[in-house]
Amino acid sequence: MTRITALEWDDDGLLLLDQRQLPVRTAWVRCATAAEVASAIAELVVRGAPAIGVAAAYGMALAALNDPGAESLEGAARRLKASRPTAVNLGWAVDRVASAIADAPAERRAARALAEACAIHQEDAAACRAMARRGADLFPGRETVEIVTHCNTGALATAGIGTALGVVRELAARGRLGRLWACEARPVLQGARLTAWEAVRDRLPVTLVSDTAAATVLSARPIAAVILGADRIAADGSVANKVGTYPLAVLAARHGVPFYVVAPTSTVDLELATGEGIPIEERDGDEVRKVRGVQVAPAQVKVFNPAFDVTPPGLITAIVTERGVARAPFTEELQAFCRGESG
Amino acid sequence: MTRITALEWDDDGLLLLDQRQLPVRTAWVRCATAAEVASAIAELVVRGAPAIGVAAAYGMALAALNDPGAESLEGAARRLKASRPTAVNLGWAVDRVASAIADAPAERRAARALAEACAIHQEDAAACRAMARRGADLFPGRETVEIVTHCNTGALATAGIGTALGVVRELAARGRLGRLWACEARPVLQGARLTAWEAVRDRLPVTLVSDTAAATVLSARPIAAVILGADRIAADGSVANKVGTYPLAVLAARHGVPFYVVAPTSTVDLELATGEGIPIEERDGDEVRKVRGVQVAPAQVKVFNPAFDVTPPGLITAIVTERGVARAPFTEELQAFCRGESG
Repeated sequence: MTRITALEWDDDGLLLLDQRQLPVRTAWVRCATAAEVASAIAELVVRGAPAIGVAAAYGMALAALNDPGAESLEGAARRLKASRPTAVNLGWAVDRVASAIADAPAERRAARALAEACAIHQEDAAACRAMARRGADLFPGRETVEIVTHCNTGALATAGIGTALGVVRELAARGRLGRLWACEARPVLQGARLTAWEAVRDRLPVTLVSDTAAATVLSARPIAAVILGADRIAADGSVANKVGTYPLAVLAARHGVPFYVVAPTSTVDLELATGEGIPIEERDGDEVRKVRGVQVAPAQVKVFNPAFDVTPPGLITAIVTERGVARAPFTEELQAFCRGESG
Repeated sequence: MTRITALEWDDDGLLLLDQRQLPVRTAWVRCATAAEVASAIAELVVRGAPAIGVAAAYGMALAALNDPGAESLEGAARRLKASRPTAVNLGWAVDRVASAIADAPAERRAARALAEACAIHQEDAAACRAMARRGADLFPGRETVEIVTHCNTGALATAGIGTALGVVRELAARGRLGRLWACEARPVLQGARLTAWEAVRDRLPVTLVSDTAAATVLSARPIAAVILGADRIAADGSVANKVGTYPLAVLAARHGVPFYVVAPTSTVDLELATGEGIPIEERDGDEVRKVRGVQVAPAQVKVFNPAFDVTPPGLITAIVTERGVARAPFTEELQAFCRGESG
């Protein structure tokens, strides 16, 4: 079994696994320009906050390879950052590549940009491994545990084994995973299409449920934790993540189930004091009116389709980063982890 | 604009609007035997607790028309009751027709059974009108209100204007409906396919959301109430209804939004003291793995697919029946309404 990868760099550019077609087909999309990478991010060829950060970094490398002039690079940065508004890793990765090449002469920019993108790629894989260990350590004892998750936070969402799903994989590797309950995550169904696909491929004990049935699972099963990822974390610990996260947090609190967020420090946005400032992307209503092109609602019905929601820090038990586990009040620990200190 | 009807009786038997095909096609299924009615109920040609009660009553009439012998009638009753386990209206309607003809000579049974089925049909339509008035009266004042609903509780779910959606229609008729937020209700998407279709057809101001976005609506909009139906109500006021109801109740409580259940007294099961005894139907996993026949999850992934969940009485603000509005502690008022007293 080959390892699942969401994206790969080769001599001809960036290869992205076309996640829109999973689990039915495994197809790859090649991007040769930053504009192609930006479109692929906007169209969900690649998704997941860490993965789109890495893809955007390679997008900057493609811009530098194609034209290392300042205008080309600024245009690429602008376009990539605008491709999706909520995940902060996107801007973080673009800015990091831009900084790395800012002082370099034009003829060296391509090589430096590519090296920085590769570094971001490798660091994300390493961060996944570190988060997986720290997250799995939150479950002491020897008994198996049942976990609820939402959306996809696995190899398809990162450049490594995943954030929340990385923790689940580590629990499985330690012989501790009793069952993973995966919510399907309407409207784009990343749980059904991607998490179920990864879990079946890795032979994890997984059960898929519609989002409406998650509350039944939380009331009927001995769930050890709800574990999921984040697209942006404010300084106070507010978490923007896939729509459907906030109701799961409310339900977890009602049932006394710990609620863990797993995300690299690149997801933390210390410039935002609270979750109120996080921009929430609204996507096309046809994502709700149709499923894989098939009409499921009247074509003329009005739709409200926010891609994310915000969970307040009071509902979050802990935030697991690659440098440590932050608990309420989150701010100081998140600041320390973002400075590079370990917890 | 013709009125929406889920079922009609004519000289050749029972006509059921094939709700599986909505909103894409309007097609009718004709049932000439009780077995055909039972299959249509099991396969969701007709659904909604009051509507399947009326359909089952006509199923008994068909059995009596085809063969009024005791064996035929008992077989039909057994088959109809077994077609779906959760809605109590089904057993209630079957028993009512069976009682009505129990003492009749064989040659009179068909006419009596049909008369009783027609009476149940007419009473359900009248109950819908009464519930609509009582429910709309819960919103004093003159301002418009925004309502969240789940699944389909309209003309397609009843023999009248609907239970919860009947209240919404009455609010609209009184010029009081600001907006209806309809949750899509995965897995079978009765909200997207049926409620959105009814609302668009009746020109109600409706916005469709994925189930995952309902919490965002409850936190971001001035919602006056969550209003939905029921498949079975225990004596203590516990409500079994479409899966996804219980999480909406938890969220409504968190946001201080009244949570109203609208259902005829035929939905009340006084024999069950609490919600724990309510049988919850588990349906085929392919309802989650596929949407209208299109694969959205790996074919081999395990699925947990409960069709209903149970909301405890502590989360319910009021239960609106055709005879009155019951509030906590619900038992005495529910008992009185079931005896025929009005509140």
